Amino acid sequence: MTDAATNMRLKLPVTCIILEVILIILFGTLVQYDHETDAREWHNSSHQDYENDFYFRYPSFQDVHVMIFIGFGFLMTFLQRYGFSSVGFNFLIAAFALQWATLMQGFFHGMHGGKIHIGVESMINADFCTGSVLISFGAVLGKTSPVQLLIMAMFEVTLFAVNEYILLSILGTRDAGGSMTIHTFGAYFGLMVTRVLYRPNLDRSKHRNSSVYHSDLFAMIGTLYLWMFWPSFNSAVTAHGDDQHRTALNTYYSLAACTLSTYAMSALTSHDGKLDMVHIQNAALAGGVAVGTAGEMMLTPVGSMIVGFLAGIISVLGFKFLSPFMEEKLKIQDTCGVHNLHGMPGILGAIVGAVTAALATKDIYGDGLADVFPAVASGDSSASKQGGIQAISLAVTLGIALLGGAIVGFILKLPIYGAPPDTICFEDNIYWEVPGEEEGHEAQLTAVRTEESEKLNS
Amino acid sequence: MTDAATNMRLKLPVTCIILEVILIILFGTLVQYDHETDAREWHNSSHQDYENDFYFRYPSFQDVHVMIFIGFGFLMTFLQRYGFSSVGFNFLIAAFALQWATLMQGFFHGMHGGKIHIGVESMINADFCTGSVLISFGAVLGKTSPVQLLIMAMFEVTLFAVNEYILLSILGTRDAGGSMTIHTFGAYFGLMVTRVLYRPNLDRSKHRNSSVYHSDLFAMIGTLYLWMFWPSFNSAVTAHGDDQHRTALNTYYSLAACTLSTYAMSALTSHDGKLDMVHIQNAALAGGVAVGTAGEMMLTPVGSMIVGFLAGIISVLGFKFLSPFMEEKLKIQDTCGVHNLHGMPGILGAIVGAVTAALATKDIYGDGLADVFPAVASGDSSASKQGGIQAISLAVTLGIALLGGAIVGFILKLPIYGAPPDTICFEDNIYWEVPGEEEGHEAQLTAVRTEESEKLNS
Amino acid sequence: MTDAATNMRLKLPVTCIILEVILIILFGTLVQYDHETDAREWHNSSHQDYENDFYFRYPSFQDVHVMIFIGFGFLMTFLQRYGFSSVGFNFLIAAFALQWATLMQGFFHGMHGGKIHIGVESMINADFCTGSVLISFGAVLGKTSPVQLLIMAMFEVTLFAVNEYILLSILGTRDAGGSMTIHTFGAYFGLMVTRVLYRPNLDRSKHRNSSVYHSDLFAMIGTLYLWMFWPSFNSAVTAHGDDQHRTALNTYYSLAACTLSTYAMSALTSHDGKLDMVHIQNAALAGGVAVGTAGEMMLTPVGSMIVGFLAGIISVLGFKFLSPFMEEKLKIQDTCGVHNLHGMPGILGAIVGAVTAALATKDIYGDGLADVFPAVASGDSSASKQGGIQAISLAVTLGIALLGGAIVGFILKLPIYGAPPDTICFEDNIYWEVPGEEEGHEAQLTAVRTEESEKLNS
Repeated sequence: MTDAATNMRLKLPVTCIILEVILIILFGTLVQYDHETDAREWHNSSHQDYENDFYFRYPSFQDVHVMIFIGFGFLMTFLQRYGFSSVGFNFLIAAFALQWATLMQGFFHGMHGGKIHIGVESMINADFCTGSVLISFGAVLGKTSPVQLLIMAMFEVTLFAVNEYILLSILGTRDAGGSMTIHTFGAYFGLMVTRVLYRPNLDRSKHRNSSVYHSDLFAMIGTLYLWMFWPSFNSAVTAHGDDQHRTALNTYYSLAACTLSTYAMSALTSHDGKLDMVHIQNAALAGGVAVGTAGEMMLTPVGSMIVGFLAGIISVLGFKFLSPFMEEKLKIQDTCGVHNLHGMPGILGAIVGAVTAALATKDIYGDGLADVFPAVASGDSSASKQGGIQAISLAVTLGIALLGGAIVGFILKLPIYGAPPDTICFEDNIYWEVPGEEEGHEAQLTAVRTEESEKLNS
Repeated sequence: MTDAATNMRLKLPVTCIILEVILIILFGTLVQYDHETDAREWHNSSHQDYENDFYFRYPSFQDVHVMIFIGFGFLMTFLQRYGFSSVGFNFLIAAFALQWATLMQGFFHGMHGGKIHIGVESMINADFCTGSVLISFGAVLGKTSPVQLLIMAMFEVTLFAVNEYILLSILGTRDAGGSMTIHTFGAYFGLMVTRVLYRPNLDRSKHRNSSVYHSDLFAMIGTLYLWMFWPSFNSAVTAHGDDQHRTALNTYYSLAACTLSTYAMSALTSHDGKLDMVHIQNAALAGGVAVGTAGEMMLTPVGSMIVGFLAGIISVLGFKFLSPFMEEKLKIQDTCGVHNLHGMPGILGAIVGAVTAALATKDIYGDGLADVFPAVASGDSSASKQGGIQAISLAVTLGIALLGGAIVGFILKLPIYGAPPDTICFEDNIYWEVPGEEEGHEAQLTAVRTEESEKLNS
Repeated sequence: MTDAATNMRLKLPVTCIILEVILIILFGTLVQYDHETDAREWHNSSHQDYENDFYFRYPSFQDVHVMIFIGFGFLMTFLQRYGFSSVGFNFLIAAFALQWATLMQGFFHGMHGGKIHIGVESMINADFCTGSVLISFGAVLGKTSPVQLLIMAMFEVTLFAVNEYILLSILGTRDAGGSMTIHTFGAYFGLMVTRVLYRPNLDRSKHRNSSVYHSDLFAMIGTLYLWMFWPSFNSAVTAHGDDQHRTALNTYYSLAACTLSTYAMSALTSHDGKLDMVHIQNAALAGGVAVGTAGEMMLTPVGSMIVGFLAGIISVLGFKFLSPFMEEKLKIQDTCGVHNLHGMPGILGAIVGAVTAALATKDIYGDGLADVFPAVASGDSSASKQGGIQAISLAVTLGIALLGGAIVGFILKLPIYGAPPDTICFEDNIYWEVPGEEEGHEAQLTAVRTEESEKLNS
């Protein structure tokens, strides 16, 4: 089933090895342990061991790491014949992106004497940036070669770091859980890429672009890990103490409320009142996206629940009504529906963050104001101005994502990456050695055939 | 396959939305951040960041969270045609129950100026209460509609909070890992519900009430996560320091010993000496249940191992001999065998707890006595009296569970919730859009048929 | 399919119960809580709760625990008809080995007044030792009875503890992540056992010794959990503070680089340039093995990446060229290819560790030298001497593993354990009650047959 054009024998090894050699050279030149991972530096000043940032953030890091590799990877195994590619390409591009992100984020977020300093917080940030690439992967799933995906990751990580730098460092935006920087950016970047890569004859692979019973169960593994660990995701890089604690709690309640509205809307809008696995697998997560910005703020538990409740409704309606419209009219073929899980809920999260920031007062936050809104606490800014900055940040993010996605889409359109033909999309066999379906299944079918043929011939 | 009676188009959305709106109103009225999640409160007093309860309990919370959603959810996917419902309804009722539990437990465990204060410890307790509901779900699995399950969850959470309040707050019982409050309560409540909902013609769905090869592997994911994280479960709300440490260690050894006795008993009692997946998936966990009460006490490692060893034996014997008896003679159709995994081991755990408490001395516990038995340490009670209280607590729990389960069972018997008919139990198709079985499988069978027919016709 | 020889009705229960009773007796005689798990001891001296080792190591312990039970267990489910045994025997022998390891390691690592003291660090070490047994299990997978595996575990744990004692306590070797003690030892021990148990007619079971589509997806769950949590594995018992932090970071980057070289080499060497799941599932993990010794040292991020990059290349080449050679010429039937994942990368890790140790200076490590190389810091040794000790340790490990594996292989060759015949290897059915393959699948095939037959007969 593989012809010369899609053969990866040289394309993939050359791409991987060139990229990794570049990474190794740049890491060798630029990257150092930070003062909490370096033996000499840490012991140079007086600390208690439990003050090392490792103990504040490593459990959250591991939860985020599971979301990136198991969560995103298995969420995309819902396709019947694309499980190897979903999990396997997710693995490949994430392993590349986290290394590249270390460099790009380190470069923009401040060098120390010409060196990038790394530790658990930079590892979390690298995983976050990787998450954004995997969201875009969801939009183009099934229609791209691994080489295309690596090239996309390289450009997207770079643009992610630029956007993150503009927001967090120049504008002073707050976005700890990444409603804007991660979700909105990843979704609209990916949607633009898939728009540029539009395939008018994709319906020739239509029979593979759906799930089977077991593939939906595998996908639920991804869904549940994303759902369970989202409180860790949103709180992973917030300030120590009450901030991490509050962010996790807000996310927990937002997701719970979102799950109920998702089930409600799925039964309400689906055929015969039956629940649709696509909604459960995706829309129930929108509550985590939607408190990505405001989760660290004093959103209150009930505020989190209202946001989550709305996110679930928006997301299911998106799957039901908006996605078909986007595919037919806007020529946006969004395989995983990332617009419904990350795009719209990301925008909702940005708006909720802007409003919550605008309402912040010293009376509500006390001395904790300095953790959440340092510029407001120091008097350099005001709450309403912070709210305005948050809103502007959404516009900036959308602009960079859409423009960047368009440019990268055209780069990926070059016919040199071994992309699959329209007739063999959503098919592992093109890039993977695929074993038989089920043990003895084909053997049995052959046996039936042979047996009957023998009878016929006798 | 769906007729009007089981159609969820309106029933499920209405139930979900009414429940969530009630939750939002009550959270808005009653619930506040506690002093460790509130920005103002935390910064109002002098703390080091590492003293925030988040760092003592959040890793345990996340392990418990995985047990609730992946552990319970996948454990129940062993049924061949009920994987979507097992994981999906588990997800739905857990997301509801943890919100409702926050209110009920907060209400009973002490309001602060008319407000319920929440943080990581209340989140763990909400997940614990949810676990109890999911145990009951195991008893009625395959025979109930999602609306029935939500109603059951609402009542069960409420009664759980009442029982927990009587035990922990009025009687002063110790039950950190919930042998009584979670396991015994959840199991006997569920058994009573399934008794009231007895279906004499359930054997019409018998062919679906069994596993297939892959569904048993999915179930092992659930089993192993429950097994691995049970040390976190039992230690999640014990006192900081040696108490959490000791509880995790005791549970670790109890489970290891339980696993060996489970394999031994399974081979001994099964057909042809072959191991039975039902035993491995369930009985190997009984060791965690059985040290739920005594795990925080000075049970000693060897004590934990003996308890686990016995729990595995009891549990396998229950699956082999007691469950068929209960189904035939007592009309208790216990789909997952929760009596063997949670019921009997829960009672064993309560008894072990009572005995261990009665044997507590200042000599053994030193100043640590105040952490485990505050009433004994303060002189308000004696060890033997504490042992008596523990025993009484078991009786109270059984009474409330059985009585409550009976009443709720009758409420759930009303023919308004869209329960499945006897002929279509254990079947996803009734509440879910279900895709084809295996990729190309039916197509291939059709191809064989067509091919042969053509030959015949030619 | 079970005849008398492989029947486990008595063999398995008797083995399990004797072993567990011995464990209980020895635990009762020898094992005590350490000063951080004992209520009296902990409260006897003045500590803050957050200084309890539980909070430094328990999250890492839980990650290691997941690697042992889910990671190793599911990694081996790639075989089409051996999923129950892979996960189930992994579960059984791990539950036994961790108890036995507590005793053996406690005995060798220093008794306290005739007692073995246990806590979270001993739990991690017991899990580590168990990991070594599971590596050997991978070499003999599909060809051994559960009784054989328990006996192997008993001997291997004992020899592991002896080797570990010689290295860590007598020679003063550093090997926190176990490149030598865990991976090299487990791999060469297992390879020697499988050599002694050589089956010339194993090709009679050849049709079962391969994967199917879904079994490869289950195996990816194992792979990814091992990959994600390896940073926790390597850092679990290193010194508090910068050491744990640095080790996790080094492992993270080594694995990322290894993943890229694995994909490159897989496409380069496989049929038609297609990726091979065997490589992805295994070789991508070699980067974790290869920094098992040097991970805690000042290997630098770029050093870690280079090591990981090489490990991936070596491992894929081993699967492609060395494994077939070893099977044909050396009669070593290595089911999971543990030589490629643990053997060669373990040796690489030992060499990297020796070189990195030899290059250690006070200038690089500062006062942190005492954490990583206490003998060098105290002046009792020099860096180059430490490097020599590391190299000698590799030779010692190989010697004990190969000699021990040979002896234990001959013990396991006795025809009393119920090993499967050559014709029924890699088959669950021999030791497990196995349900039907797929719901209705055989029924459907039967229906086709019947229908066609009827047509033929009419």
